[in-house]
Parts: sequence; structure tokens; C-alpha cells
Amino acid sequence: MNTFGQIFRLTDFGETHGKCVGGVIDGCPSGLYIDVDFVQSELDRRAPNKGDSNSTQRTENDHVEFLSGIYEGKTTGGPIAFIVQNQDGKPNWESNRLLKPSHASFVLKEKFGHQCNEQGGRFSARQTVCRVVAGAIAKLILKQQNIDIQSDTISIAQVSEEGDTAGALVECRIVNLPAGLGEPAYGGFDAMLAAAMLSIPACKSFEIGEGLAASTMSGSQYNDVQTAGFQFLTNHDGGVQAGITNGQPVVFRTAFKPIPSLRSQQQTIDYEGNPSVLNGSSRNDRCVCPRVLPVVEAMAALVAVDAFFLQLKNKIL
Amino acid sequence: MNTFGQIFRLTDFGETHGKCVGGVIDGCPSGLYIDVDFVQSELDRRAPNKGDSNSTQRTENDHVEFLSGIYEGKTTGGPIAFIVQNQDGKPNWESNRLLKPSHASFVLKEKFGHQCNEQGGRFSARQTVCRVVAGAIAKLILKQQNIDIQSDTISIAQVSEEGDTAGALVECRIVNLPAGLGEPAYGGFDAMLAAAMLSIPACKSFEIGEGLAASTMSGSQYNDVQTAGFQFLTNHDGGVQAGITNGQPVVFRTAFKPIPSLRSQQQTIDYEGNPSVLNGSSRNDRCVCPRVLPVVEAMAALVAVDAFFLQLKNKIL
Amino acid sequence: MNTFGQIFRLTDFGETHGKCVGGVIDGCPSGLYIDVDFVQSELDRRAPNKGDSNSTQRTENDHVEFLSGIYEGKTTGGPIAFIVQNQDGKPNWESNRLLKPSHASFVLKEKFGHQCNEQGGRFSARQTVCRVVAGAIAKLILKQQNIDIQSDTISIAQVSEEGDTAGALVECRIVNLPAGLGEPAYGGFDAMLAAAMLSIPACKSFEIGEGLAASTMSGSQYNDVQTAGFQFLTNHDGGVQAGITNGQPVVFRTAFKPIPSLRSQQQTIDYEGNPSVLNGSSRNDRCVCPRVLPVVEAMAALVAVDAFFLQLKNKIL
Amino acid sequence: MNTFGQIFRLTDFGETHGKCVGGVIDGCPSGLYIDVDFVQSELDRRAPNKGDSNSTQRTENDHVEFLSGIYEGKTTGGPIAFIVQNQDGKPNWESNRLLKPSHASFVLKEKFGHQCNEQGGRFSARQTVCRVVAGAIAKLILKQQNIDIQSDTISIAQVSEEGDTAGALVECRIVNLPAGLGEPAYGGFDAMLAAAMLSIPACKSFEIGEGLAASTMSGSQYNDVQTAGFQFLTNHDGGVQAGITNGQPVVFRTAFKPIPSLRSQQQTIDYEGNPSVLNGSSRNDRCVCPRVLPVVEAMAALVAVDAFFLQLKNKIL
Repeated sequence: MNTFGQIFRLTDFGETHGKCVGGVIDGCPSGLYIDVDFVQSELDRRAPNKGDSNSTQRTENDHVEFLSGIYEGKTTGGPIAFIVQNQDGKPNWESNRLLKPSHASFVLKEKFGHQCNEQGGRFSARQTVCRVVAGAIAKLILKQQNIDIQSDTISIAQVSEEGDTAGALVECRIVNLPAGLGEPAYGGFDAMLAAAMLSIPACKSFEIGEGLAASTMSGSQYNDVQTAGFQFLTNHDGGVQAGITNGQPVVFRTAFKPIPSLRSQQQTIDYEGNPSVLNGSSRNDRCVCPRVLPVVEAMAALVAVDAFFLQLKNKIL
Repeated sequence: MNTFGQIFRLTDFGETHGKCVGGVIDGCPSGLYIDVDFVQSELDRRAPNKGDSNSTQRTENDHVEFLSGIYEGKTTGGPIAFIVQNQDGKPNWESNRLLKPSHASFVLKEKFGHQCNEQGGRFSARQTVCRVVAGAIAKLILKQQNIDIQSDTISIAQVSEEGDTAGALVECRIVNLPAGLGEPAYGGFDAMLAAAMLSIPACKSFEIGEGLAASTMSGSQYNDVQTAGFQFLTNHDGGVQAGITNGQPVVFRTAFKPIPSLRSQQQTIDYEGNPSVLNGSSRNDRCVCPRVLPVVEAMAALVAVDAFFLQLKNKIL
Repeated sequence: MNTFGQIFRLTDFGETHGKCVGGVIDGCPSGLYIDVDFVQSELDRRAPNKGDSNSTQRTENDHVEFLSGIYEGKTTGGPIAFIVQNQDGKPNWESNRLLKPSHASFVLKEKFGHQCNEQGGRFSARQTVCRVVAGAIAKLILKQQNIDIQSDTISIAQVSEEGDTAGALVECRIVNLPAGLGEPAYGGFDAMLAAAMLSIPACKSFEIGEGLAASTMSGSQYNDVQTAGFQFLTNHDGGVQAGITNGQPVVFRTAFKPIPSLRSQQQTIDYEGNPSVLNGSSRNDRCVCPRVLPVVEAMAALVAVDAFFLQLKNKIL
Repeated sequence: MNTFGQIFRLTDFGETHGKCVGGVIDGCPSGLYIDVDFVQSELDRRAPNKGDSNSTQRTENDHVEFLSGIYEGKTTGGPIAFIVQNQDGKPNWESNRLLKPSHASFVLKEKFGHQCNEQGGRFSARQTVCRVVAGAIAKLILKQQNIDIQSDTISIAQVSEEGDTAGALVECRIVNLPAGLGEPAYGGFDAMLAAAMLSIPACKSFEIGEGLAASTMSGSQYNDVQTAGFQFLTNHDGGVQAGITNGQPVVFRTAFKPIPSLRSQQQTIDYEGNPSVLNGSSRNDRCVCPRVLPVVEAMAALVAVDAFFLQLKNKIL
């Protein structure tokens, strides 16, 4: 499903080699001032940095164009549609008929009957442009509540070999979130964050608070004790207990695998299963970081706004 | 939200200190033979093992009672409701007005205005009974497709101190899943698994395939190359690429924090924020393992059945 | 799907010849006082009236039993499960293998492969018990906002022949609804009401305001003009314009077909398609009215509460 | 909510005075040949006919432009986005600050805080362009199953006065639908149709089969008896029983109110509640018919495809 969220919802579309990517944001309250410069600045954070050796050499000038839902700078309450034109859509034809290892080629052949990579242009990191635009609008809502989201690259894999790519670990913090967000059972704030992160291309893990390390701890070490005035002494739980925010910073980490497209040759097969060799591409990033950071934040923002709206009903009595 | 799934859906209810817990399974095809012995055996796997020092001393004789949706042993296509009576509902009154550290007490006070722990009986591991019942029915569907799910405890925290509890790490494998399951973008098989796992009480991480370790690898190390006949040489991706299953075993790990209720005393505060001391309880488990294993498998089964049903539409043309 | 609503949601279950019917209400705010007497009084309105020649002679003593979600009389924020025991479950075995004309027999054979009527006990007016219970709780929320729902039988078909059944027309009014409820495009207040009504067994039409008669009117006759102070001069639109409430009473009508089970014999066929004769039953009502009135109101209440919750997000800026 | 459907889903956007309207179709199977000429021909049916006195004089050359989801003429399985440019977006500035009687002006002021009509351009019949495009693609799926949808204008109100507008009644038939479509309880085929129709601007009623007339009939008149070979003798139920299709033609009628924008003057008030006079507009249609016919059929097609996909799971055992 190409829709994320329950009340504040993003539905997006578009392929890496098509005309544009874009999306529709539904459920945004009316009267929100859309700071287009801010939205654009978030897109710029996602753009390749020519000075950064981790980034692609492709020139992408991503400019968001809003098609609906905004009147004189403010939201109308109707759906907010936007597109971002693709500037450099020329596909790499040589490899169009070869399965790209650890990419989407094979699974799309199996799921949809695809016969070439170009049919699967939907399954590209290009799609994350849409998340950044919607996330920026979510951040505008959160800013009015004084809620802030920040992320950092924690580590990048040490890769010696030339032409190779590198995995990376990202940490994200949501601060000033009110306590009480997140729904019971299957709608927990952490569960929604986990789904949000794993939906980002190349993401392979999600941890909140102590995360994986929690499995090595004792209860007396781990428990977040509160003292007079409800102050927490520690934040091992990463701001979420029983699926619900507790007012402390929400802290989570998410690991990304190395980008599967290498700058060096790879053994592979074609769509009929015959062995072949895939040439390297110089057009791809070496690592998802730092470009993935605004994507991680955007998904966190979508989760936070949705949880905020879902909690409103508990304030009416 | 107390509903999980999109087509094959579980809605559950019930509190640890109430009469019963139960659920409603919607979207189950008609004509499925319900092997009640199998369902019961899954519940038995979740029951405390008196010989296991990690388990609670509470006597729980969990027997599933089906209320609807089954006729002469087979599903009718209508909703399948079930309850499991609570046998030992006496709450621990001493601590009813004290916040339990790293438990749901504080967040429910903030979210729902709760004034005591008993109001939050919904947020207890008791609720996982419902997941096991629904997961068992999902497994019956998967068995007809030859799909199997197994899980193991990978590690339990070394805890020296008496009366303490321990975190644990669990691995789960889904085998014989067809390639092509999982929806684009936000409905990926891994994203749904991640949400499913993080929704289990005490779960703090989700990793698929190499998971966290993927962040330390290079692309040439990591990529899952295929050879003639579409055979994979490795399974670093854990059976899911671009959110879609590739026919290899789906392998994921999930970490659980130490159970927050200790057998020893803990510093805490009451619902008004005044410092107090929480007495230990001998009624709780020392570790979620091994009782959480059927819960992990059940959630994986719910994800797999839903993904299987959602893929059917791609077979009609 | 056996779930109704988006935020305030009812999932129900149970068959006419099973142990009980019941449901789970999700999304109810915490802290709502559940007036059990009121809920029971709504069930009593649905019960057969022995003095009413339109009603069944079956003795149904429907008592609601809450299983979860309520603590010391107030909602906890968790799912509210309830059951109502079936008192008189003995099926009419003679006709179990004969298709009941205009009933669910044939379509369930086609949809689910049913081989007898008893398998289809889900598809009975008995299921509406669950709607009345959930609707009563929705009414308790609406009462706090001073919103009231009333319905009446407008007409009952004149039926001369003995043993025959009669169609009926019902009108319902929701008063004191605030303006602004209902979502754009596909989530209109009238669209949700229409789906709610058509989901009631035997319902065959929905009209709002002038309804069908609107097709015979001119714009100058029809338009609801407002005067100084935003007062409406007329209510031809029935309180909903462009899918959104305008603060006037919401007025709609819904037609019910005659109950398909007759007290006289009917020609029919069996499940193999062989001609047969279906004996009459004295156990069924002659007309859905007046017992359907609390069902109509209940469904209207579910729609109103959901729309009320969905509108909350437009008040945060 | 601006999304319709559960598996086959349309999310649309755009305002009458904006750059374009458009939508995203999610859940379409891969490999479907998109006959663009057919889609365009459906849009042409919706276009104003210069020779038809019921139609607007505006020149609309609606051409659909697909942005994603199609590769070499066939669907990829990804979301299908499309836009239709607005040709004639000049708003009627004179009336921008006057409430249009029985239009969306007042309710949008109440719901979203709108201060002029232009903010509400989403709530215009222009939005139905998107339904027609999505409905055309749904029809392409249905054609492969030999399912056909046709509609007709049954009656148009007799209007004597010059400059006035007229209500109308439409009938629609879906033929060759397999028996067994429609979900239990709240997901009935008729309930989904009712919601679909009431979501069309100006629609005020929905009837299926005998519809309103069912309320005046006796059971012995009404019941659809079957004879040897499961043949139905009548179709009073309009092809849907207990919410599920029975294989007979699905026949429903839906009434439209007169278009609220008149060619003559109307009394009204401005956004502050002061009395004023709204001048007539020559740019609007006199009646929704015949232009609404492809919209009615499109919504019926969306319902049918969704029900068809939801039924697939009952065929796996």
C-alpha cells in the first residue's frame, strides 16, 4: 500500500525514471501556514552534496510544486497534492535486463511479473522525496506544539575496497513530545515508528531506547525510575513505555544496509536466470548517509502527527 | 488501535484482572478446519512451565472457548470470536496506587487519566493470549501452503542479583514463503513484521537478516547474489528485499527488555508523585523467554497471512 | 468486514443459533460513565413486544454483559467488549436445507460454500443487538454534547393476506449536531449514514432531506437560503450540504423490505437446486418496525461520534 | 477522507480553480493494459455537450495525463497517478464573498474556517473528473471478467421558470457480476454502493431493487423465488441479498438535487451574515444529467472491483 498514516496520511507515487514523483497529503488541518522555504530546505538536505564523497554525482534540483490544498499560503483542509519533477531520468540501459543483487529486481519479477528493471522504478530511493515533503508539513504542525525532531549519523561502515558501498547507523530524537501519544496494543508509538523506518529503502533494523542492548540487561539496571514530581532518572525505554510516550525524548536508531548498486562489477543473472556480469555505476551514492537523515525525520514526523491527532479524542470529556 | 491486519484481522480485548481476554478474527476464509487441539497446544506453549525458573508461579490454565464463526469444526466465513477465562485475577492491591517503573502506569495516567494500576490491566502480557489464538488460526492457513514458522531464544541476559529479571533476544524464521509477498512503499513485509514485533509488550528492537550488522558491512560483502536458476548464494537480506519476500527464509530477531516487575523492592512514586517503595512480586516471570516464543510466531503468522491475501489480486490477470 | 467506523469502531460477531452475539468497541475515550441501565433500555426497545402484532413470539431476554474496558463504571480507554447471550437458539431444522427466498441462503452458498442455513446464522437480524449496544454507548458520548437522535415509523405496508409480512419506512432525526462534521469527498456525513443504513438487514433505500423528491424539484424551490445571522429558512438538504453538517437537524429516511420469512408456505428450492416447499414460521416478526428503530438510531450515533472525533483535528491551530 | 476503497483505492485532489485535478490509484494489479482511448472516451462522456441545453457553456477539454504506474502501456503494480489540467479556472469573483445557497460555502466556513468560496474549490463537481478516470480503469478490470455497467437518466424535473435548474433521477445496472461479492455486516455490496453514490455532489438518495417501494410491499409480493437450476423468477432485491450479490443484475437508482447555482438571482448572505443578492451565473449546468452518468458508473465500478478483490481469499482453500 502506498499510503502511510491513519488520520494524517501520505499517499505517494512516481518512478525514478518517470516524469516526476509526488504525493497527496490528506487530513491536514485547515489554516496551517505552509512555509515553502522550509519544505524546500528539507528537500535540499536530501539532495546530493557535491562535496560529499558518499553522494551521487547526479544533478538533482528537486523543487516541490504544490498542486492543490493551499490557498494564499495556508491549507484549505482539502488534500495537498505535490509533485517534484525528475531532472535526470535516463535509465542505465545496459543493466536493464540484469537482476541487480539485493535490489528490487528479482522480487518485482516474482510479485508483478516485471521483465526489466525500468518497470520497477517505483522501488527506488527517489520515492523518498515524497516522504520529505510530507514530513516537512508534518514538522510545521509539530513546531506549533514545540515538538522538534533531529537525527545524526552514528557510524558508517569502514570500507577499504574501491567502488564499494557502506552501511550506516542513524539515531533520531523527538523532543518535547507530550506524554500519552500512541494507541493501545497494535497502534503503539514505537510500533508505528518501527514500521515507518523499515519502510525506508535499505533499512534493516529498528531499536528504541536501549534497543538490542536491552536483551543483555537486568530489570534493576534497566527500569526507568521516577522521583518526586514525576521526574525520570533515566531513559532506557527511549521515551516510549507500553507503546505510549512518557514525555521523555523519544530516541531510536535504525540501521541501513550498504547501497546495493556498486561502482564495481558484480556477478548476477538476467531475467531468464542466465549468469551475467553487472557493470558498476558511478551514478549512485556510496552510503545512504547523510541524505537519509531528512527521510528518517520525515517518517518520524508523520508518526508523531498521526499519534497527536488520534489522542485528541481523549480530551473531550 | 486494538486491531491488527488489513484483510485477515484480529481485534482483541480484555484485562489481566478482568473476567477474560478474547478477540475477534475477521477475514478468515470459509471452510477452514479449525484444529482446536493445535490452537490449545499453542496456548500451552505460552503457559508458565513450573519447571522453568524463568516463569511465573501463577497457575494459568488457559483454555480457548470459541463463541462464533465455526460450524461443525469449520469456519463459516463469519467473524471468529473467542475468549480465554482469567483464572487468577486477584490484583496485587498493595501496589495498585504506586507507579510501576518502566511499566504502563505512568503513561496510562497521562493518556487516559488512570488513577491506579488496575485500570490499566489491558496493558499486560496477559493480552498476548489473544495473539496466540489468532496466530494459531493463521498458522493453520499457512500450513495448507506448506509455510512454517519457528522461533528460538538466542540469548538471555546474565543476571547475578537475586530477585532480578533478565532481557532476552529471540530469532524467528518463516520458511517456504512464496516470493512476491509484501506491498510497495509502506506495506512492506518487513515493515509489517517490525510493527508486529514492537507491538509485543517489552519488545525494544527488530532486525531482519543482517539487521544492525548491515550498518557495518560493505556492499560487496552484503549483496545477495543469485546464480543460474535464480538460486541465492547468501541470505544477508533475511528473505525480504525492497519490502517483498524473495522466497528465501525470512529471518528476523527481536530484543526484549527485562520484565519491569521485579521480585525485589524498587524505588518509585505514587500517582500523586510522592516517593514510595514498591514491594517485589513473586508472581511475575523472570524473563519473557520462553513464553514469548509462540507470541512472536503468532504475530509473524498474522503478517504472513495478510500479505498472502493481499497478493492474490496480482494473480487474476 | 465486520468492523464499522474509523476512530470509534465496532467489531461484532455471533450467530443467531450460537451461544451469544457480541462486539468490541474500540476508540472510546477514557473516563466515560457507562450508564448500563440506559444501554439495557435501548436493548429493551429492540426486544419483541408481546402486545405488538408485528413482533415475533420468541422470548428474548437480552441482557448485555460487559467483558472489558470498564472500571468502576467508567471506560478505561481500552476496548469495550460485550456479549448478549442467545436464549432461544433452537434452529428450525425442517428448513435448514431449503433456500429461504430473499434471505441470505443462496448468496452464502455462493460466497462461502454454505450447505445449510444454520451456517449462515451470522446473517440474521439477531446481529443488530450488537449495533444497539454500541450505539447506546455512542449516544452517551453524544449526550454530553447535547446531541439527540430520534426515529419514527413513517408507514407500514398494507398487507391483506394472512401470514404475510410488510415493508416499512422509517425517518430519523439527529438534532443539535454542530456544523462542520463530515469529511471531504468520500467521507461525507451523508455517505457514511447511507452505508450505515444499507448495512442494516432488509434496508433497501436511503434518502436525506428531500431525498428522492429532490429529483423532481427546481433549484429555486429547493435551495436552502440563509438570512441575517446565518439562519436557514428551509431544510430541504436535510442538514447536510456537500457532505458536511450545517447545524440544522439531520433528517433521513430509510425503507425496509418485508421480512422474507413468511408465516405461510413459499415455493423454493433446496441447496442442490431441486424444487421444494418452505413451510411458514410463526417465530418471525411481521415487520421490522418498531424493533428496527433503535438499530437505525444506533447506526446514526456511530456515524455521528466518528465524524465528531474526525473533526477535532481542525480545532488545534 | 479523500480516499475511496479498501484494496483498489482512489485518492484524489484538486480544486475547480486550481491548476489541475488528479488522483492516485493504488492496488491495481500489474500487467493490465490501459486503454487510454477508453479512459479518454469516459472523460468525454462527462464533458459538456454544446448541443445540450442542460450543460454548461464552459469549454472544458479534459485530457488525462498519466504520471506513474504505467510502463509500455501496461500497469506496473505501482500507484497510478494522473492529472487533468483545468482549462477555465477563472473564478466568479463577484460572488466569492457571498454564501452560495445549498452549496458548500457555509459548511466549509464552519468546518475549515473558510472566508471565501474560492477556498472551497475542492468541493465542486470538477472533482468528479478524477472518479471518471479511476472508474475507467476499474471498468477495464471488470471487462476482463465480462462485467458491464450501464446507466440512464430516468427523469428530469419539469422546470418552467427561466434560469432555473432541475433535479434528476438516474438508474444504473451492473450485469454479469458473479454471485458472492460483498462482505458481511458493514461491508455489504449495497452499503458500499450507497456510500459511493451519496459521495457524488448533489446526490440525495440511493435505492436498490424495489428500493423505497419495498416499504409498501408484502413479503409474498416481494420475495425473489428461485426455481430448478437456481433460476430467479424476479429481481425485487436488485441483485443484492444480505449485502451479497446473487448473480442477478445489480440495479440501483440515485436522485440528484437541482444544481444550486442558478442562472437567476438568489437572496443570500455574505460570510459575515449580512443579507445580499447573488447574481446568476451562465457558466453552470442546468441539470447534473447526462454528465453525471459516467460518474455514477465510475463509482459503481470502484465498488465492484474492490468487492471482487476482497472475495479472492475465499477461493484459496
